[in-house]
Amino acid sequence: MARIAIIGLGYIGGSIGMGLRAARLRDTEIVGFDDWRAARNAANKQDAVDQIVGSPREAVDGAGLVILATPPAATSELLAEIAPSLGRGAAVTDTAASKVKVGDWADQHLPRGVSFIGGHPMAGDASAFGIDNASADLFQGKRWFVSPAPSASDSAVKSVLGMVRELGATPHFLDPEEHDFVMAGVSHLPLLASYAMFTMLRSSDGWPDFGRAAGETFRTMTAFNSGDPSMTTEIAFTNREQIKHWIDRYVLELNRVRNLLDEEEEDLFREYSSAQINHAKFLGGDDLDPDAGAQPDIPDATSQMAALLISPRLYDKVRQMTKRTDEKEKEREARGRRWGRG
Amino acid sequence: MARIAIIGLGYIGGSIGMGLRAARLRDTEIVGFDDWRAARNAANKQDAVDQIVGSPREAVDGAGLVILATPPAATSELLAEIAPSLGRGAAVTDTAASKVKVGDWADQHLPRGVSFIGGHPMAGDASAFGIDNASADLFQGKRWFVSPAPSASDSAVKSVLGMVRELGATPHFLDPEEHDFVMAGVSHLPLLASYAMFTMLRSSDGWPDFGRAAGETFRTMTAFNSGDPSMTTEIAFTNREQIKHWIDRYVLELNRVRNLLDEEEEDLFREYSSAQINHAKFLGGDDLDPDAGAQPDIPDATSQMAALLISPRLYDKVRQMTKRTDEKEKEREARGRRWGRG
Repeated sequence: MARIAIIGLGYIGGSIGMGLRAARLRDTEIVGFDDWRAARNAANKQDAVDQIVGSPREAVDGAGLVILATPPAATSELLAEIAPSLGRGAAVTDTAASKVKVGDWADQHLPRGVSFIGGHPMAGDASAFGIDNASADLFQGKRWFVSPAPSASDSAVKSVLGMVRELGATPHFLDPEEHDFVMAGVSHLPLLASYAMFTMLRSSDGWPDFGRAAGETFRTMTAFNSGDPSMTTEIAFTNREQIKHWIDRYVLELNRVRNLLDEEEEDLFREYSSAQINHAKFLGGDDLDPDAGAQPDIPDATSQMAALLISPRLYDKVRQMTKRTDEKEKEREARGRRWGRG
Repeated sequence: MARIAIIGLGYIGGSIGMGLRAARLRDTEIVGFDDWRAARNAANKQDAVDQIVGSPREAVDGAGLVILATPPAATSELLAEIAPSLGRGAAVTDTAASKVKVGDWADQHLPRGVSFIGGHPMAGDASAFGIDNASADLFQGKRWFVSPAPSASDSAVKSVLGMVRELGATPHFLDPEEHDFVMAGVSHLPLLASYAMFTMLRSSDGWPDFGRAAGETFRTMTAFNSGDPSMTTEIAFTNREQIKHWIDRYVLELNRVRNLLDEEEEDLFREYSSAQINHAKFLGGDDLDPDAGAQPDIPDATSQMAALLISPRLYDKVRQMTKRTDEKEKEREARGRRWGRG
């Protein structure tokens, strides 16, 4: 019997549990823990896992794959707590929106022989939280960033990739530093910009008038104020330098637009038209590298994978992995689903 | 036979035509014009108006109510063009997102005896344009700002209010200056902020990576780059000083958030939690003046209307209107629908 442990049974952890249960993995038990009683009860009611256990340590005991789906700031303590109970060969992954800090904590707390593979599913409505919003197909067709620690074993990486695919998502390798830089730009800055736009008007003297006059544009641009405040705060604080960089860039861009208002109308029109075309291309996917959609396919497609990789460190790791021919692995693969077995 | 003229048969003008036709007004003919042949053909095909005519002048000839639904920059020339053909007592309204400039143009071009009542429906998807997206119920349940010129006649104001209600919207009086200040904050700034966020990342060296990594947050926050570029440009240029004010405010707020990242995590968490609560109240409408939803009801509810009014100038105008007892008006009201008859 293989064991998968999910710690944190909220929107993401609950959806992972429901998705894995829906996949009906052979000879695999999914156990879960949440330190909030209401979440445990809801997970039980929704059959999000096979079994709720009494502590993180109990959950990871004997687990080949451990998924941490807690708020990022809880991860450091949690890693320290579960470390003594993790079996040799276990794969530990997480779902936090920033990867450098979590990787550092894993490096600090996890024992030798346990592999950390950072993970970040690009799925879900930023304003949804709690297992009540969870669903088995939350990750279908979505991207899932995977950042293995340099010391991670091949089989542990494969376990995590297998989980990602089983949930219907596409794994994409990204170096933790690059991940955090990119995410600060495309996700964390937009979250804080949405926050700043709301608080700016909400704290104005004219607020009731503004609120009454607010239409779809304002509602859309401030929609991300509905998210879990602790999650957003922790994202901000585990990636603050990169976010500050992007706030500065955004302020420069806003001032550039401000200056355009003093130029000829034609200039802004030309810029806006070109943005509209680029935006349509972006939405259609034409604007991006056609290789982007390729799935890393271990152990066969070294070159495709290389195209997906950002850092030489990670590239070396993958090349090393894909060169080896592990007969035992092949044999296990032939027997069917094998991830989750450490 | 009363005549209503709609000039500009795009998303807004087309929807007004379709909504008014759906209202099946008695003894009223709705004529339309658009200087773009494709729009005229589409309007014909969709029965957006009763009749397409050959020029703006022909449209307004004999019309009691004239609705300008063109891009704002076209309004000045258009007012000059139609001025000689407007009948005495006609009501002219518009749908532009900024009101001061348009009001000035009306003041400059319209003859005595013709009333200008600025209008701004708070409806529609900012990324939609063209009559293909128009619909008869676009304005149902939406707010419609109404800014009568000081010289506007009571019956002309009533014509416009009648049209607004017939389309299912709620009229709200707002002084043009106040309107433009509020709109710059709740609508024009968000549009340009969405634009700046997209162009910032799109022009970065790392764009293909950013674009591939972009999830719902980025897609939502940059959604307004799909709008009609000429419309957005013209909004920006007919309200540039107010928008610059709000860009400056927004930059200050972004820098305040940036500084919070250097403070204790607790501070941002507290702020974010309070924003979340305020945002929920805003979405639920609890955060706003309970009188806000009240409809101005001419000529009976002076006090309610007063609560909705911003400037003394407009207040005087409405008080003056509501004091008078126009027996003729009452008689016409008793006969049924009367707006659109100048």
